[in-house]
Amino acid sequence: MRYKLTIEYDGGAYVGWQRQDNGPSIQAALEAAIHAFSGETVQVWGAGRTDAGVHALGQVAHIDLAKATTARVVREAVNHHLKPQRIAVLTVEEAAPNFHARLAAKSRLYRYRIVNRRAPLAIDQGRAWHVQVALDSDAMHDAAQVLVGRHDFSTFRASLCQAKSPVKTLDQLDARRLGEEIEVTARARSFLHHQVRNMVGTLALVGRGKWSKADVAKALAAADRTKGGPTAPPDGLYLVEVRY
Amino acid sequence: MRYKLTIEYDGGAYVGWQRQDNGPSIQAALEAAIHAFSGETVQVWGAGRTDAGVHALGQVAHIDLAKATTARVVREAVNHHLKPQRIAVLTVEEAAPNFHARLAAKSRLYRYRIVNRRAPLAIDQGRAWHVQVALDSDAMHDAAQVLVGRHDFSTFRASLCQAKSPVKTLDQLDARRLGEEIEVTARARSFLHHQVRNMVGTLALVGRGKWSKADVAKALAAADRTKGGPTAPPDGLYLVEVRY
Repeated sequence: MRYKLTIEYDGGAYVGWQRQDNGPSIQAALEAAIHAFSGETVQVWGAGRTDAGVHALGQVAHIDLAKATTARVVREAVNHHLKPQRIAVLTVEEAAPNFHARLAAKSRLYRYRIVNRRAPLAIDQGRAWHVQVALDSDAMHDAAQVLVGRHDFSTFRASLCQAKSPVKTLDQLDARRLGEEIEVTARARSFLHHQVRNMVGTLALVGRGKWSKADVAKALAAADRTKGGPTAPPDGLYLVEVRY
Repeated sequence: MRYKLTIEYDGGAYVGWQRQDNGPSIQAALEAAIHAFSGETVQVWGAGRTDAGVHALGQVAHIDLAKATTARVVREAVNHHLKPQRIAVLTVEEAAPNFHARLAAKSRLYRYRIVNRRAPLAIDQGRAWHVQVALDSDAMHDAAQVLVGRHDFSTFRASLCQAKSPVKTLDQLDARRLGEEIEVTARARSFLHHQVRNMVGTLALVGRGKWSKADVAKALAAADRTKGGPTAPPDGLYLVEVRY
């Protein structure tokens, strides 16, 4: 039986979603918890391979289990064996045999949190990007609209990116201020590696008045990573929702 | 010169606001940071002596410094020397010589966060109370109104409480649901030790249907701690604002 899992995690303690030799990953923690309750060695397929330090409120993954059980038992047992990891399985549903968390995803929604204030972060350390210089969120939102649509996003693509093509369709890129916080929302069928963080790093240049909307358009058209802004830190990034 | 400091902290790493022998306190961390930049040994007077694990978004404290400086320099220097503590000085203002953070406070606003869901907390571990049983927030809000006003709050008072009188005036006690979260807001000139946590623990009994509004009224009238509900954990409690 195939199961669809929706997962929350604090990425700060992990090398990222994907299993790696250099430290604990969310994928490996889930696989260990599933093994501990079922005795089965499964592979957990995630919709988004989030980087070290990136969080999730609604990562989606699928697993196959040979022994008969229920979605409820899977959720309770995996959560039990995950403790004290900073990973929680929010929901488990039975899925069709051909459901694939990564390949079947129709859209991914990311949120990026910037705390824009002079004072350091106490409560939100590791959970947001701290920017001390005042940012103009309206200018950021306006410039962001240049990136919406189907484009070659090479300017915002990490050199390690394994995607076959740099062409993606960005459905939404909004920046809005909520008090001292700026929230950037990005939605697309799929993203290139570091695309959201590179777009946010570029928008921050606009927010501080160093770049104009036209500069963003020029950088995008260059299709060259060296023409883009810096990569925003992972701390502020959350995978919020995956739709199928 | 006397300065008024507004302070944010993650209480999870501390034995509480007040200096104690058994571990790091917020007060001691602030006093050490002030000494590091000014060379002066000061006492930091806080408006609320929050317990171990209790957070602050807007604790207020005052200090006296002999050497001439500016509010801006105090804020920047203290924040610099606080690193990597999970404490941040949000603002510093020059204050009147007779300003007293604790004695002059006209009201204190606390917020208590309950995350009401089956799945464990990943992101909010240590930052909210995790209650798995479904809570009726409307019933909680309704019962809370019994506690608003001037009462003998002995039922909600910790045995260690040092207040002279158990009689306090509670100006506001609201419970409201925001998705899977229930937020309890409490405002009063001052609170007894553990009063907010004991009130929230009691309201949770109402939320899960074990207690009625009348039971809360009866418990309050008993003026006896053994008649009240359990103490809610510190993780969900935030000192939000102190007014003067």
